[in-house]
Amino acid sequence: MNGATVQILVVNPNTTASMTETIASAARSVAGSWTEIVAVTSSMGPVSIEGYYDEALAVPGLLVEVATGERSGAQAAIIACFDDTGLDAARAMANIPVIGICEAALSMASFIAQRFTVVTTTERSRVPVEGLVQRYGMAGRARVRAADIAVLALEDMASDALLKLKDQIAHAIEEDRAEAIVLGCAGMADLAAELQREFGVPVIDGVGAAVKQAEALIALGLSTSKRGAYANPLAKPYRGALKSFAPGPLAAE
Amino acid sequence: MNGATVQILVVNPNTTASMTETIASAARSVAGSWTEIVAVTSSMGPVSIEGYYDEALAVPGLLVEVATGERSGAQAAIIACFDDTGLDAARAMANIPVIGICEAALSMASFIAQRFTVVTTTERSRVPVEGLVQRYGMAGRARVRAADIAVLALEDMASDALLKLKDQIAHAIEEDRAEAIVLGCAGMADLAAELQREFGVPVIDGVGAAVKQAEALIALGLSTSKRGAYANPLAKPYRGALKSFAPGPLAAE
Amino acid sequence: MNGATVQILVVNPNTTASMTETIASAARSVAGSWTEIVAVTSSMGPVSIEGYYDEALAVPGLLVEVATGERSGAQAAIIACFDDTGLDAARAMANIPVIGICEAALSMASFIAQRFTVVTTTERSRVPVEGLVQRYGMAGRARVRAADIAVLALEDMASDALLKLKDQIAHAIEEDRAEAIVLGCAGMADLAAELQREFGVPVIDGVGAAVKQAEALIALGLSTSKRGAYANPLAKPYRGALKSFAPGPLAAE
Amino acid sequence: MNGATVQILVVNPNTTASMTETIASAARSVAGSWTEIVAVTSSMGPVSIEGYYDEALAVPGLLVEVATGERSGAQAAIIACFDDTGLDAARAMANIPVIGICEAALSMASFIAQRFTVVTTTERSRVPVEGLVQRYGMAGRARVRAADIAVLALEDMASDALLKLKDQIAHAIEEDRAEAIVLGCAGMADLAAELQREFGVPVIDGVGAAVKQAEALIALGLSTSKRGAYANPLAKPYRGALKSFAPGPLAAE
Amino acid sequence: MNGATVQILVVNPNTTASMTETIASAARSVAGSWTEIVAVTSSMGPVSIEGYYDEALAVPGLLVEVATGERSGAQAAIIACFDDTGLDAARAMANIPVIGICEAALSMASFIAQRFTVVTTTERSRVPVEGLVQRYGMAGRARVRAADIAVLALEDMASDALLKLKDQIAHAIEEDRAEAIVLGCAGMADLAAELQREFGVPVIDGVGAAVKQAEALIALGLSTSKRGAYANPLAKPYRGALKSFAPGPLAAE
Amino acid sequence: MNGATVQILVVNPNTTASMTETIASAARSVAGSWTEIVAVTSSMGPVSIEGYYDEALAVPGLLVEVATGERSGAQAAIIACFDDTGLDAARAMANIPVIGICEAALSMASFIAQRFTVVTTTERSRVPVEGLVQRYGMAGRARVRAADIAVLALEDMASDALLKLKDQIAHAIEEDRAEAIVLGCAGMADLAAELQREFGVPVIDGVGAAVKQAEALIALGLSTSKRGAYANPLAKPYRGALKSFAPGPLAAE
Repeated sequence: MNGATVQILVVNPNTTASMTETIASAARSVAGSWTEIVAVTSSMGPVSIEGYYDEALAVPGLLVEVATGERSGAQAAIIACFDDTGLDAARAMANIPVIGICEAALSMASFIAQRFTVVTTTERSRVPVEGLVQRYGMAGRARVRAADIAVLALEDMASDALLKLKDQIAHAIEEDRAEAIVLGCAGMADLAAELQREFGVPVIDGVGAAVKQAEALIALGLSTSKRGAYANPLAKPYRGALKSFAPGPLAAE
Repeated sequence: MNGATVQILVVNPNTTASMTETIASAARSVAGSWTEIVAVTSSMGPVSIEGYYDEALAVPGLLVEVATGERSGAQAAIIACFDDTGLDAARAMANIPVIGICEAALSMASFIAQRFTVVTTTERSRVPVEGLVQRYGMAGRARVRAADIAVLALEDMASDALLKLKDQIAHAIEEDRAEAIVLGCAGMADLAAELQREFGVPVIDGVGAAVKQAEALIALGLSTSKRGAYANPLAKPYRGALKSFAPGPLAAE
Repeated sequence: MNGATVQILVVNPNTTASMTETIASAARSVAGSWTEIVAVTSSMGPVSIEGYYDEALAVPGLLVEVATGERSGAQAAIIACFDDTGLDAARAMANIPVIGICEAALSMASFIAQRFTVVTTTERSRVPVEGLVQRYGMAGRARVRAADIAVLALEDMASDALLKLKDQIAHAIEEDRAEAIVLGCAGMADLAAELQREFGVPVIDGVGAAVKQAEALIALGLSTSKRGAYANPLAKPYRGALKSFAPGPLAAE
Repeated sequence: MNGATVQILVVNPNTTASMTETIASAARSVAGSWTEIVAVTSSMGPVSIEGYYDEALAVPGLLVEVATGERSGAQAAIIACFDDTGLDAARAMANIPVIGICEAALSMASFIAQRFTVVTTTERSRVPVEGLVQRYGMAGRARVRAADIAVLALEDMASDALLKLKDQIAHAIEEDRAEAIVLGCAGMADLAAELQREFGVPVIDGVGAAVKQAEALIALGLSTSKRGAYANPLAKPYRGALKSFAPGPLAAE
Repeated sequence: MNGATVQILVVNPNTTASMTETIASAARSVAGSWTEIVAVTSSMGPVSIEGYYDEALAVPGLLVEVATGERSGAQAAIIACFDDTGLDAARAMANIPVIGICEAALSMASFIAQRFTVVTTTERSRVPVEGLVQRYGMAGRARVRAADIAVLALEDMASDALLKLKDQIAHAIEEDRAEAIVLGCAGMADLAAELQREFGVPVIDGVGAAVKQAEALIALGLSTSKRGAYANPLAKPYRGALKSFAPGPLAAE
Repeated sequence: MNGATVQILVVNPNTTASMTETIASAARSVAGSWTEIVAVTSSMGPVSIEGYYDEALAVPGLLVEVATGERSGAQAAIIACFDDTGLDAARAMANIPVIGICEAALSMASFIAQRFTVVTTTERSRVPVEGLVQRYGMAGRARVRAADIAVLALEDMASDALLKLKDQIAHAIEEDRAEAIVLGCAGMADLAAELQREFGVPVIDGVGAAVKQAEALIALGLSTSKRGAYANPLAKPYRGALKSFAPGPLAAE
């Protein structure tokens, strides 16, 4: 592989720019020297994603960002929300590979631990993340805990978010036989190294995992199969407020 | 139970009004005499839902319809798309029960057959429906076939859609040991009785199944638990084109 | 659907008439105004069903009641024991749909909660109910607890049965992350509303759930598929004490 | 282990004595020289067991035989019907171990093959046997075929039953990647050796497998745990035609 | 079956001869009077098997013993390590049946209990045993505990190994709803009877279970299918220190 | 991440040096410019790995290579056999991360396809690979085919190996609904690009996938958790031919 620059789009699907900074910084800290990280904040939707409703409303905004990024030359896209919000829709829409940070983190954990625990933010996110654990084939080896932290509290130095997170990690190691910890929110991306040192077990951040996964797919010349459920959306009219999403317009415009 | 009228909202989450007619008619044909069916067409999104992308973009529109319907007095809501599009988000948002036609159909089939086959429209929908079969605990007993029918072709008398559907039903009975057939698209709602007569096995339409399920929940005084993942969305700002969805405004306005 | 009367048979497969009263009352309280509930007590077998042995011996009696009810015009039958005792045999024998209260309750719960707990009576019933949870595809979302209550104690106002039941519900909500509770015995059918008020989560009684499921199947014109395992029993001699059960005699007599 | 005689009860739960002869002969051909096989025919119920209805009606008769056998000194009991009819009830009732021939055959197959196929008689039995395959943890490695043979045709030399059975075995080896064959009916017990020679893969008969399993449990001093679901039935009145089954009377009389 | 002598090879795959004595004694105490137990100690590898690394290094030695035993007339072989170390390789190599003590113990337990717990030695072995529980289809009914005992401490009368083992058994009965206990190490083979008496639930030792399973397969004329994954290894050169294992030499020498 | 060189060890666990060349070339073609690939051939064991027996005998040799490589400064190790031979043992032994090419390939495929098929070499390897598919949580989405190719035939230009491989890929796309193909043998590593062009679906080679996975773990500062089953082996004597493997000597020498 030569040293040609690759561009990876990292979409923060919530609309809080300060969290995008955290995510971008984490992404850049692990990216290869030949990788350009383009981090964007969604321009429509909730300021944080806590549960199914926020998740659903974050999707149109992130689709716009993925489509825009692909047209601008990104070779892979990352959706930086641990619920893997809109992942299937983005994968069908795009021709570049799209990575969810939950699937990337769980996959990464599976190479270094037999049992691990995801610590996510709120109870609203716990069952959705358990659904992803099931979907990604990890139900036999991973458990999910919620630390009762508001997502935006992770941006607030003065909050007790870090204490609550550490408390759940300690419980996971003690009670779940966790051999590794997966941080269950993009807003925790900057904490992995510190927590790994403190607890003495591998601590995996999904943003970093997804960056390396995206680099891997690009290097291997692999992208989403367009056979089956990820075939590009059929051209058809879209009506009302979302009519700009009609396939064709969005992809080609 | 007294004879008081109940109102059930049936949302067609695609934006094709003629399909809403088919759905409304099927719903009314099985509803109790005391039930008022309020059928609405989403005002924004794709004209048909074929795959993950269309699904995701149909969600904001259907959420508006569910919220509006709840404010107008509906006691239960049905999402009349076989992908159960937006079901989790709607359930979290609403305080009335919300039913997906796929889950209702699979559940209904499970009471009358040990093995059954879902016949859906396109290959784009097949894996998503298999995902639902897995989620609803039916993976050991249900299979999914795609009839290679465009959803809107079901509205077109002159198309060969019915022939293709019958062909897959015949294969399901012969090759899948199907004891019953589930129609895997809301647009097929008017065909169940005819197909049941022709093939001699139970044929289940999800719209009808969901109407009876909604009536049941209302009669039993049951609604979505607000403990856990379906707790109402937290109040928070929503930005950009979707800011009207910020919880609070949408629910209370 | 017009207002024509439908008749639903509710069989109490144990031989305790007072429990049939509890069951009939619960059934009638949720049935539609057009529905006639015919509640019968089995005339042979144990006075309560607690475990596999009682279950097996309750089957011949309940089959007689289902066959008699079908001949008398019932359009659906409900087996009002949470072990779904004899359900498969009754389904094969009858041409009307037959509903078990466990499957009806679990199905109903699945529409309003992602995680729920069944509270049954004795440890003897716990593993059998867990087996049903597995069979009905709910193993990933439902847990089973036993309250250490003798079934007939539920009929006895002076017993501590209600206290024990409430204690397990409290533990389920606290420890199992239960979003809803399923009452795991037909003898608890009258307690659902009170417990729902007290605990603030949906509480599902299988008898009521089964009545609405039966009404649904009748309204939709659906009955058990006779293709596969539920094909009517073959005509053949039955010997000894049970010779009256030889298929043909029982159905046609 | 010394050479003391052990007595194993083999119950044919259908009421056809000629099939008991086939079963007894197969049992004796593999039993240890120190083992006495006591083979009995149920005195009430269907002449053959084909599907759920026959299964259920065979249970009271087989319980009588197991209880009688235990009182007469049997140290283990075998239920010689491949549906493992009444197994759980018998296990709870008895204090000696009780073995089903399906579970014994599947277990035996699992020691000598990674993939195997059960060939049973009729389509009515196929789903029930698939349910047992699931219950016994073999769903990932075993498939079930039905040879469309009436059970009693196996007793009729002039029938084409053997041809049909061989045809399915050939298909299993070719299409299912079967490394071994399990004979899915007690009435096939005499055919295992011949079929093994003809097809060149292990062919397992459940009757023989159960005899060796029973001998094993006796030699190891193991019997059914009475903790949990197999605790002996509680003493209570049984009414009507089956009142002799009230626990206590049946066990002690 | 006549009284002809059969020979069963029991391989202790660790290199500690005193443990072989414990194993041989347990094997002989349950073997039939016509069975000759040939117990051998592996001549190469670790003195105890605690975790994946020791497991892997124990395999060449045990393969030599199985091959030697088969040439010397053994009719079945048992690998007396609860990790079922090398089982698949030995099964492919040998033409006699090969039994692992874990699979034999789990299978035996499944005939007498619905829920049971394996108590193994160290945390290093816990996940591997959980993997076997999954592989053998028992994940829904069996749990695994580690008693924090070094394997060789089981040979040391003065150690607190027995106390630790009893402590975990007590916890299993109390917290896991265990109806039976499986001893998860060959070195515990002599303790089953004592522990069964003390705790009042069935206690299963895998060595004894495997002996009876081996006798059963021999009596039934069954051996490993040579179709599929257990086909004999292909003849090919083996290089370096293990060249004597080249198929052909090892089998035929 | 700075541009510092990282060293990745790729062990060919069979003893055929020409296959190591194929593997090394594939590894280098996708490795980052800062990555040094050190490819080694095992010095003991079979010339190809086809089935459980060869697998087991390849383990000591590959452990030596992994230990030697770690001492020489490798930061991650890859076991280049699709059976993931010896992976667990190597992971426990080493302190650097160890990657199997099967797990790497399946993981990579899961990011770009919902359904995919592994095409491996011989029937002897098919069930073992199915076992890995199950272990890695992909049983619901991946199938395994065997192309009936001897492993070393892949090194022989004149063989019909490529034709057989293409034939199975065509069948997989047609019959398995495969959206992507995973090459199920390290010896196929050079064929991925050509096959991807020919068949128009993503084709994944495990060697390349593992190189990128290894680079990812190194960049993220992650290695195997030493808590649980992958804790380093305990120091203890090893006897006989393998005594040099006693933990300590091997690691420290």
